[in-house]
Amino acid sequence: MNPGSAEPQTLERGLFITFEGSEGSGKTTQIGRMANLLTDSGYEVIVTREPGGTEIGEQIRHLLKHHAIDQHMFPETELLLFAAARAQLVRETIIPNLEEGKVVLCDRFLDSTTVYQGVARQIAEDPVKIINEFAVGDYVPDLTIVLDLPAEIGLQRIKTRASDLPDRMEQENIDFYRLVREGYLVLAKSFPDRFTVFDATKEVTDLEAEIWDEISERLFSES
Amino acid sequence: MNPGSAEPQTLERGLFITFEGSEGSGKTTQIGRMANLLTDSGYEVIVTREPGGTEIGEQIRHLLKHHAIDQHMFPETELLLFAAARAQLVRETIIPNLEEGKVVLCDRFLDSTTVYQGVARQIAEDPVKIINEFAVGDYVPDLTIVLDLPAEIGLQRIKTRASDLPDRMEQENIDFYRLVREGYLVLAKSFPDRFTVFDATKEVTDLEAEIWDEISERLFSES
Repeated sequence: MNPGSAEPQTLERGLFITFEGSEGSGKTTQIGRMANLLTDSGYEVIVTREPGGTEIGEQIRHLLKHHAIDQHMFPETELLLFAAARAQLVRETIIPNLEEGKVVLCDRFLDSTTVYQGVARQIAEDPVKIINEFAVGDYVPDLTIVLDLPAEIGLQRIKTRASDLPDRMEQENIDFYRLVREGYLVLAKSFPDRFTVFDATKEVTDLEAEIWDEISERLFSES
Repeated sequence: MNPGSAEPQTLERGLFITFEGSEGSGKTTQIGRMANLLTDSGYEVIVTREPGGTEIGEQIRHLLKHHAIDQHMFPETELLLFAAARAQLVRETIIPNLEEGKVVLCDRFLDSTTVYQGVARQIAEDPVKIINEFAVGDYVPDLTIVLDLPAEIGLQRIKTRASDLPDRMEQENIDFYRLVREGYLVLAKSFPDRFTVFDATKEVTDLEAEIWDEISERLFSES
């Protein structure tokens, strides 16, 4: 592929792709690679993340990740803060960019709440669903890529990240990681049209090729 | 009344009292006076406020009140941030203190969201109700005191507060204040057992006496 050589491409309604999976599943790497491939193919790409992605959202992210260790944040507070960051991200970033026909790649989105707060922290399903809908409105992703990894491998990968000290979330134990993995797989089965699950133990380049195939297919059907 | 002379009083389940009303209605003044009267009568009193009241909640409050003027915070984001601060306050402060038999006085609570985000910002009633319930659980106030004031007088009082520069909320226009007032009155009619409405144009000491009568009655029925 010849970077920058492609003709500019425009999508009528944009394309909204989210990346999900436990910590250590390689989301950031693959999002970067997809952004490059999309740009090389002539698409305008916006890369964003959750929680965060907007100035207000990044402040919420900071509060979620770095509040003092002696302050216990209750699961309900956590869920509502994630939803607040998401509500802002959808309206400030995602909607305007989709309306301009761009491809939006988002590192985590509403399914993270369903899985982390709902399944793994055992908050009742109904309020999680309603709060998600309230935050997101009609802007459900066109495609959700799940990078699936056995809990043990995910944890191992995180521990060997030298420069990245584990934050609060990453300190959760192996059982929590198993619940998260299971949660994603159940969701993917429930919404097979939106979700595609990839084996994140594969080599980075092999995984890249597989994900790119999937995205390319969606691009053809959108344009 | 002779301060500090009363016998210590204990309530079996505590007493949870919230104060509502537009900016400038005198909530802070009356809460301070009620706290003194309650303490003088031998009760243990906790005074708190929304959004805020906990370390995490105060950080959320800061974000709500002082985010940069060029960042537009969407109403959905705002509602979810208020709910997050509330979820934390209920679990960290309100529940433990009520369980110890104390009187909890709270400056604003869930009714502020119903009125400010629901009625005045016109967010649909159902999600507001569900998000409120999610944040608060079973901890609905025993008594809610509404300090009722014509919109014009509330706004006038705020403008003459020399040391208190109007924040974002206080810059809202007169129509918004009217909707807020009306919203509280409708709520009070819907839940007459929980709400008592007071005329906040009265003299501070007269208002104090009336509110104290109402609280005293509740104390007798609780102990």
